[in-house]
Amino acid sequence: MVYIRSFASDNHAGIHPEVLKAIERANVGDAIAYGGDVYSERAKRLFQEHFGDDCEVYFVFNGTGANITGLKAVTQSYHAVICAETAHIHSDECGAAENVIGCKLLTVPSADGKITVDQVQGFLHDIGNAHHSQPKVISISQVTEYGTVYRPEEIQALADFAHANGLYLYMDGSRLANAAASLGVEFREITTDVGVDVLSFGGTKNGLMVGEAVIFLNKALGQDFPFIHKQSLQLASKMRFIAAQFEALLTDRLWYRNACHANRMAKLLADELEKIPAVQITQKVEANAVFAIIPPPIVTKLQEKYLISLWSEARSEVRLMASFNTEDRDIHQLVDDLRSAINATHI
Amino acid sequence: MVYIRSFASDNHAGIHPEVLKAIERANVGDAIAYGGDVYSERAKRLFQEHFGDDCEVYFVFNGTGANITGLKAVTQSYHAVICAETAHIHSDECGAAENVIGCKLLTVPSADGKITVDQVQGFLHDIGNAHHSQPKVISISQVTEYGTVYRPEEIQALADFAHANGLYLYMDGSRLANAAASLGVEFREITTDVGVDVLSFGGTKNGLMVGEAVIFLNKALGQDFPFIHKQSLQLASKMRFIAAQFEALLTDRLWYRNACHANRMAKLLADELEKIPAVQITQKVEANAVFAIIPPPIVTKLQEKYLISLWSEARSEVRLMASFNTEDRDIHQLVDDLRSAINATHI
Amino acid sequence: MVYIRSFASDNHAGIHPEVLKAIERANVGDAIAYGGDVYSERAKRLFQEHFGDDCEVYFVFNGTGANITGLKAVTQSYHAVICAETAHIHSDECGAAENVIGCKLLTVPSADGKITVDQVQGFLHDIGNAHHSQPKVISISQVTEYGTVYRPEEIQALADFAHANGLYLYMDGSRLANAAASLGVEFREITTDVGVDVLSFGGTKNGLMVGEAVIFLNKALGQDFPFIHKQSLQLASKMRFIAAQFEALLTDRLWYRNACHANRMAKLLADELEKIPAVQITQKVEANAVFAIIPPPIVTKLQEKYLISLWSEARSEVRLMASFNTEDRDIHQLVDDLRSAINATHI
Amino acid sequence: MVYIRSFASDNHAGIHPEVLKAIERANVGDAIAYGGDVYSERAKRLFQEHFGDDCEVYFVFNGTGANITGLKAVTQSYHAVICAETAHIHSDECGAAENVIGCKLLTVPSADGKITVDQVQGFLHDIGNAHHSQPKVISISQVTEYGTVYRPEEIQALADFAHANGLYLYMDGSRLANAAASLGVEFREITTDVGVDVLSFGGTKNGLMVGEAVIFLNKALGQDFPFIHKQSLQLASKMRFIAAQFEALLTDRLWYRNACHANRMAKLLADELEKIPAVQITQKVEANAVFAIIPPPIVTKLQEKYLISLWSEARSEVRLMASFNTEDRDIHQLVDDLRSAINATHI
Repeated sequence: MVYIRSFASDNHAGIHPEVLKAIERANVGDAIAYGGDVYSERAKRLFQEHFGDDCEVYFVFNGTGANITGLKAVTQSYHAVICAETAHIHSDECGAAENVIGCKLLTVPSADGKITVDQVQGFLHDIGNAHHSQPKVISISQVTEYGTVYRPEEIQALADFAHANGLYLYMDGSRLANAAASLGVEFREITTDVGVDVLSFGGTKNGLMVGEAVIFLNKALGQDFPFIHKQSLQLASKMRFIAAQFEALLTDRLWYRNACHANRMAKLLADELEKIPAVQITQKVEANAVFAIIPPPIVTKLQEKYLISLWSEARSEVRLMASFNTEDRDIHQLVDDLRSAINATHI
Repeated sequence: MVYIRSFASDNHAGIHPEVLKAIERANVGDAIAYGGDVYSERAKRLFQEHFGDDCEVYFVFNGTGANITGLKAVTQSYHAVICAETAHIHSDECGAAENVIGCKLLTVPSADGKITVDQVQGFLHDIGNAHHSQPKVISISQVTEYGTVYRPEEIQALADFAHANGLYLYMDGSRLANAAASLGVEFREITTDVGVDVLSFGGTKNGLMVGEAVIFLNKALGQDFPFIHKQSLQLASKMRFIAAQFEALLTDRLWYRNACHANRMAKLLADELEKIPAVQITQKVEANAVFAIIPPPIVTKLQEKYLISLWSEARSEVRLMASFNTEDRDIHQLVDDLRSAINATHI
Repeated sequence: MVYIRSFASDNHAGIHPEVLKAIERANVGDAIAYGGDVYSERAKRLFQEHFGDDCEVYFVFNGTGANITGLKAVTQSYHAVICAETAHIHSDECGAAENVIGCKLLTVPSADGKITVDQVQGFLHDIGNAHHSQPKVISISQVTEYGTVYRPEEIQALADFAHANGLYLYMDGSRLANAAASLGVEFREITTDVGVDVLSFGGTKNGLMVGEAVIFLNKALGQDFPFIHKQSLQLASKMRFIAAQFEALLTDRLWYRNACHANRMAKLLADELEKIPAVQITQKVEANAVFAIIPPPIVTKLQEKYLISLWSEARSEVRLMASFNTEDRDIHQLVDDLRSAINATHI
Repeated sequence: MVYIRSFASDNHAGIHPEVLKAIERANVGDAIAYGGDVYSERAKRLFQEHFGDDCEVYFVFNGTGANITGLKAVTQSYHAVICAETAHIHSDECGAAENVIGCKLLTVPSADGKITVDQVQGFLHDIGNAHHSQPKVISISQVTEYGTVYRPEEIQALADFAHANGLYLYMDGSRLANAAASLGVEFREITTDVGVDVLSFGGTKNGLMVGEAVIFLNKALGQDFPFIHKQSLQLASKMRFIAAQFEALLTDRLWYRNACHANRMAKLLADELEKIPAVQITQKVEANAVFAIIPPPIVTKLQEKYLISLWSEARSEVRLMASFNTEDRDIHQLVDDLRSAINATHI
């Protein structure tokens, strides 16, 4: 087995040792399937400590599953979800929103992955007109797909606007921990307290083997979720092993330690890359991603040794992701190799 | 944590130690996500050794996910799937076939969980008539939901009939290992060799933490599966950990050891129950399930100590499942407790 | 153009002259599209006179469109609709319920096309269990697909049962006029007054060129119907011409005259057939259909001259339909030809 | 009944007298339902004379029905349809594409309603990547939603590009007659001969009461259409009356006379409006639509007398549509009223 160091995605990392230990500990005796076990009960309780006693928590398998089931719970067939054109639900889920939910996505252009109230406003002029899909949800990603982080007041503004217009605010929080760590806030300061109605909470990219959560902060919206959960292929039979992972993640602030570390690695990488004239960082580095334009031959050279993926082939822009398991020496080695490649190609 | 012994389902058991070990061993370094890893490659190769070099193998999260994606790959919107009225896809997946695939299920009554060519025949008179959903797939469960096992020739007959009429034969093999162990055959003798086109292969109920496989024995049918895989929320990012579990299951015939053991436990239980006049076994015990009518007060009494679920409340019929982790003493204890309950209630 | 007399379906008849006249009269000047015209307003008012001021009325193109949009308005993805196995929505709409609504149909066997409370009862034991589609609607056809007619008290019993269990009662009334004429009642006595929540009201089979109505007797259920109407491809642009047809149908009781006539023709046919020993009538003749077993060679002979369709090839059972345009002499000629065919074949 | 003159839509006009006559003529005797009648046969033959012997023709109810069924026939769940952001399928069908087909629409910005090969190109970089919906169809509207008309060579370029990349070219031809009349070409010169694979052919906006056609120029693509036709609620029972209308439309070039007239009326209107400084025409007037910016108070004044709809409230841009029944004096009266309104408001 060749050891690979990947900067291509934070889901290339493995299982955090504390999470794996939790799986092992949960592997004793029989347990009721489908969530009727004590691990699920405890993990949900931990979530409620973070997000408020009044939320409903469900565990699913993956990020696409979390987004699709979470949005399906709050949309009818004639509803539309407004999101950034960069949103994972639009760009990276193979049409699941349209096919499995059956609703329309209305996209707004976004240079940094965020959307604003002004952009959403334009979609509301056809409310009530039966010829048009009816906007019902604003969906934002926290961290965004460009590695940027919404400030609490930005979220509050979108939530206020949504609620004033009969819409809901959905948050794709596959990297919510990285956002919270970046802002130095608790989860609820960027979710419950600022008006998020439904949230997907990422586990896999922050050290879990498999598992995400769908959290209804507006509890009433989740009342029929158990049926959607099952119907949409996201109800695990041996649920205790997903729950146990989340229990580990929310114990001793492992979520925070992992996210802080990944963020710090990205910052270190960005700091080093900024010193290299041939490289141009293209987005604010606020979480665990560094977007940078690197000359094509250099990218090619680095890909001989590292997993690195192009975000935009046209711009030769890469997305470099740090994970909980990225080490300082990995960053330094990558930067060294980058410098060598530049020198060798006389750029 | 109270130790619970469950006879309610084979997914109440935990992770088999060899499977857990495999997860631990796979937890080293980074790996390409979504199946581009060596564990996936190796596991698929092992499947091909069992099912033939020419099959395509994909890993999904759960049984419902396997069935729905497998069937979605071979149906158009106007197609129907013929299955027993007891079929899991009809009775226990909260309408996923209709909602996520969008096709009709045509059900046939079944006393033992099996369906026959004669029963299917009746649905074919409207082939070509645009007013009717067009039967395209016969779906059978092996082991059936009643714990019975199709003989190879029964499967072959259905496959021959299907193919002669332009249909496919799909097998829900969530307990395929129990069937193979029961019949004393290799997997391919009840799948590839007898005309099954698409198969879901169960892992979770035979010792995995999470993971099922969709196998296209008719390879051409799977050519667009990667898109359905992703779109239907069943593509794991850290796929290596599902693959590694299957690698363990197919190594040293763990699948067989687990299945044989569970089957033997069910047989032992059935043998003991047959000695008790107040209990009536209702189905042939061919795999790891025992269906039995037990007087209501006795069931209630047992449920104080064991997880036992009623299959039919009206008939007071229970389904008692054995798992890879069921022990002889569990069976004897259950039978003892059953006898005591009967004596105490003077039945 | 050869003149064909059809007994195969009541939609083989053309447009009733009064209806055609109404189309012609509406063809003056411009009119707002999509239902914002005075014809639509007037026609809806006429419906409200029949069904109550508090109903909502929408016009659609065809019976399948009416059923699917009407049911889509009252179901979520995880809901099931309970209906007879003979129901048009199950047998004759090419899986539209499953594909366009995305919900499950749960069928009950029926010898006469009707369903009873007892049959529905069996589906309710899994209410609240996320593994099962949740029954939400009981759907009945009035007239049934076997030409039988529900008595008001039978409908009331189903409605009471539905409402007591949180379900709705839907009525496929593609031949509602025939039922009302048969029972000698006003529409509301077999709909609004006995608890029907949503109704499709047939026009095409009773003399219209094209047009059916979806009527929400439980008005709240229709509040988002305009979006479903449009999205499900059933919103006509030149709506005035559908509305004008309904206006004609509800003027001077044309609906009643047409339905009475068709019913009387069926009765006449049945009376004549009963005199012929080789023919066996198989269902009560309560509306405009006669179901009869006629020896295969006789059917073949008749089909040389008439459009006659086999309901069951296995039983050599035909469904003979009368329409508003069937004449006494047509019936007598058919019976004469039938007798001649029998004599010629020595049956 | 107040006489209304509408410039809001070409579907505000009624039925052309020759079309109504055809309906009346078809209203004799019984006819096989669902398209098995001689009117359907004859109308299809007429279409084949226009589009080639090798096309398949189906009649549906409305434009949304035509588009959705036509596109459903050529897409799988994981496919995407590329269209202009102005496309009717994206903007005006209440999410039917997403909900009834279940596929994704990928939109490109368009100033004149057209799309180009360059714009489509950008969507093809993810072909084969399972995380992304797979572009399978380019959909264009002829006439576009901005009243502009594709030249044959523009269509050919899109078709060539589509076919070179494994895509199909779909044309929303709800105003195809207006485009052909505008270009002075036969239908096939802008469809069959330039590579269009599937076409919706508009009837309602060109004088029909109700009826559109779906035409498979690439015949193989339509082979399973009968099932989609029925399932998608678009199969008329009394089909002869839709077919008869099309027969009239294709007889004595009624389609051409109607379209030419409407186009000429729009041209006349545009010519007159160009003389008025306060009015700014915003799109080329190539068919029967005139897009113009008119000061808000003037629009309000005109709306007291005419049906006129705002295309863009923000820009005070109206879309003025001419129909087969628009008369010269209607145009002159409108222009006179417009001038008077301007004078009265001192703009």
